[in-house]
Amino acid sequence: MQFRVSPLDATLQTQLQAKIDQKTKPLGALGLLETTALKIGLIQNTLCPQLQRPLIAVFAGDHGVTEENVSAFPSEVTAQMVVNFLNGGAAINVFARQHGAALKIVDAGVKVSLPGDDRLINRKIAAGTENFMRRPAMNVAQCNMALEKSAELVSEWHATGSNIIGFGDMGIGNTSSAAMLIALFADVSLADAVGPGAGLSQEGVDHKLTVLRKAQQRTGMTPRAAGESPLSALAEYGGYEIAMICGAMLRAAELGMVVLVDGFIATSALLCGQAMHSNLRDYAVFTHRSAEPGHALALSYLRCEPLLDLKMRLGEGTGAAMALPIIYSAVAFLNEMSSFADAEVSGKKG
Amino acid sequence: MQFRVSPLDATLQTQLQAKIDQKTKPLGALGLLETTALKIGLIQNTLCPQLQRPLIAVFAGDHGVTEENVSAFPSEVTAQMVVNFLNGGAAINVFARQHGAALKIVDAGVKVSLPGDDRLINRKIAAGTENFMRRPAMNVAQCNMALEKSAELVSEWHATGSNIIGFGDMGIGNTSSAAMLIALFADVSLADAVGPGAGLSQEGVDHKLTVLRKAQQRTGMTPRAAGESPLSALAEYGGYEIAMICGAMLRAAELGMVVLVDGFIATSALLCGQAMHSNLRDYAVFTHRSAEPGHALALSYLRCEPLLDLKMRLGEGTGAAMALPIIYSAVAFLNEMSSFADAEVSGKKG
Repeated sequence: MQFRVSPLDATLQTQLQAKIDQKTKPLGALGLLETTALKIGLIQNTLCPQLQRPLIAVFAGDHGVTEENVSAFPSEVTAQMVVNFLNGGAAINVFARQHGAALKIVDAGVKVSLPGDDRLINRKIAAGTENFMRRPAMNVAQCNMALEKSAELVSEWHATGSNIIGFGDMGIGNTSSAAMLIALFADVSLADAVGPGAGLSQEGVDHKLTVLRKAQQRTGMTPRAAGESPLSALAEYGGYEIAMICGAMLRAAELGMVVLVDGFIATSALLCGQAMHSNLRDYAVFTHRSAEPGHALALSYLRCEPLLDLKMRLGEGTGAAMALPIIYSAVAFLNEMSSFADAEVSGKKG
Repeated sequence: MQFRVSPLDATLQTQLQAKIDQKTKPLGALGLLETTALKIGLIQNTLCPQLQRPLIAVFAGDHGVTEENVSAFPSEVTAQMVVNFLNGGAAINVFARQHGAALKIVDAGVKVSLPGDDRLINRKIAAGTENFMRRPAMNVAQCNMALEKSAELVSEWHATGSNIIGFGDMGIGNTSSAAMLIALFADVSLADAVGPGAGLSQEGVDHKLTVLRKAQQRTGMTPRAAGESPLSALAEYGGYEIAMICGAMLRAAELGMVVLVDGFIATSALLCGQAMHSNLRDYAVFTHRSAEPGHALALSYLRCEPLLDLKMRLGEGTGAAMALPIIYSAVAFLNEMSSFADAEVSGKKG
């Protein structure tokens, strides 16, 4: 699967910055709203960006590595939570409703057959991944298929007018996959990338690290090898939901959409996509610093300051949804605030 | 001016926490949203809190100490920005509109006479404060009058159905007042409390510190003395907008409203109010950590983790307005999310 992610056109950068600086406020006083407004202006290549039909897509998949007892929750919770999403009762439902974002639920690779439901988008690649401690999570063809299927979905959503999109995950065991990928792509040790996920004790975290070390030793894949073949790394250690988020991000960037990066899982997908196409991050707005400890390290590696740090660690795209109003504020101040000249307000002394 | 700020009734605390913990998410996974939901449930003494008619009130006042060249902007900007607020062109207008918050603009003590405008609430105590480096900013009667006038306004707003209220400030020079008050009430040295405000150079900050040290030496007031007579400290070093925010917060707490604490200036008012009535903070939601360096220290003193850290430093109540959707999310998840039992989702293992 090939993507063409163009670098941003910097032509308007100076004019955008001037427009921001002429607003009736001290220079820089709107902080991250200013950098976000600048980025969105550049993505849309306009001085007057507009956000349309925000959409959150949640990809769900199961993980063979849960056989190794790496999660505080049983793996059947993945499917149960998908049903909860369809019934509107999960956190992401509440926040998407609050902010008028369309919510799409995609079966990327849930273990069990889910009940037929028009609201569920079935793109199941397989009934969960293999146990990556013992063998590759998926083969390269399956991984490519996941990238392709999610890219197609993003094309459909873009065609209905969405230009801002966030991606969430549901998958018991997926912090194990994400930790493997973050260790490979973000120059973080496995010991630092591993964390409690949905609520492991310290003993549980220690065991999870032992499992992940065995998985690392199985292939001996180095960060350098992963960088040279990100698809192989994703196939070895990823999840179907992570691969789909990766493909969806790349396609969204290719289409010039604003890409909202949620927490730990979504960042692992972003890192894979970034390794494939280094311009991806130009389209990314980092929305939230997860309480999962490895996330802060991944964000530091990316030199990104996320908009929110609400000590959340839920996934589902909840960080992306929570950041939506802030991103709307960024665009709103750029379009709606008066300039010093318009409002006849005196500027700084001297 | 006397207020009766009741301690929160903790009767429902266990039930509220249980309701939060039974939602379909790992324990604690919604981070600060959970602590916010708990607080609002306790303020409203219900398991199903509701937020109604959010309101942001911006109090404007001028500062005699600007004679000493302590601000990067000329003092006429206070009045010019009030006109900008009335015309809808400032940052707080944009954010209040975005979040459906009513916006009230109050002349607490602007130096010049503002043009007649029905949308401006005139509660001017005096045409700016005195230069507190040389004499008290206001007398105690004026300070009391400011508390009383703003308390009356809050009573009016509450009577129209508002139960959540944020307070903003506009006043060139007011970071000088706030730094004096934070040094007195938050156990912070003047050198640490002073900062660039709207954009002083390092040389400007050094000069501002010299001015504030002279103001400190003029009275010799100690933190202990300020704690014993907060009204005296507020009269010596405050601003009319700060005094009004203080009175407004106390009245809002007395009425059981949710009090949104904005940045550096609003926190200085909260600290004064807190010194008068120690239950005040129970009603306070800290919305934003300002980039003004002393603010982080004041929040540490209060042991408060604000909802946002967007590197903003604008005042006007912009931090409070930006946090509104997050506070709504806190209430929404508490009321709308399914429990594990309702959604038939399995809980944690073991």
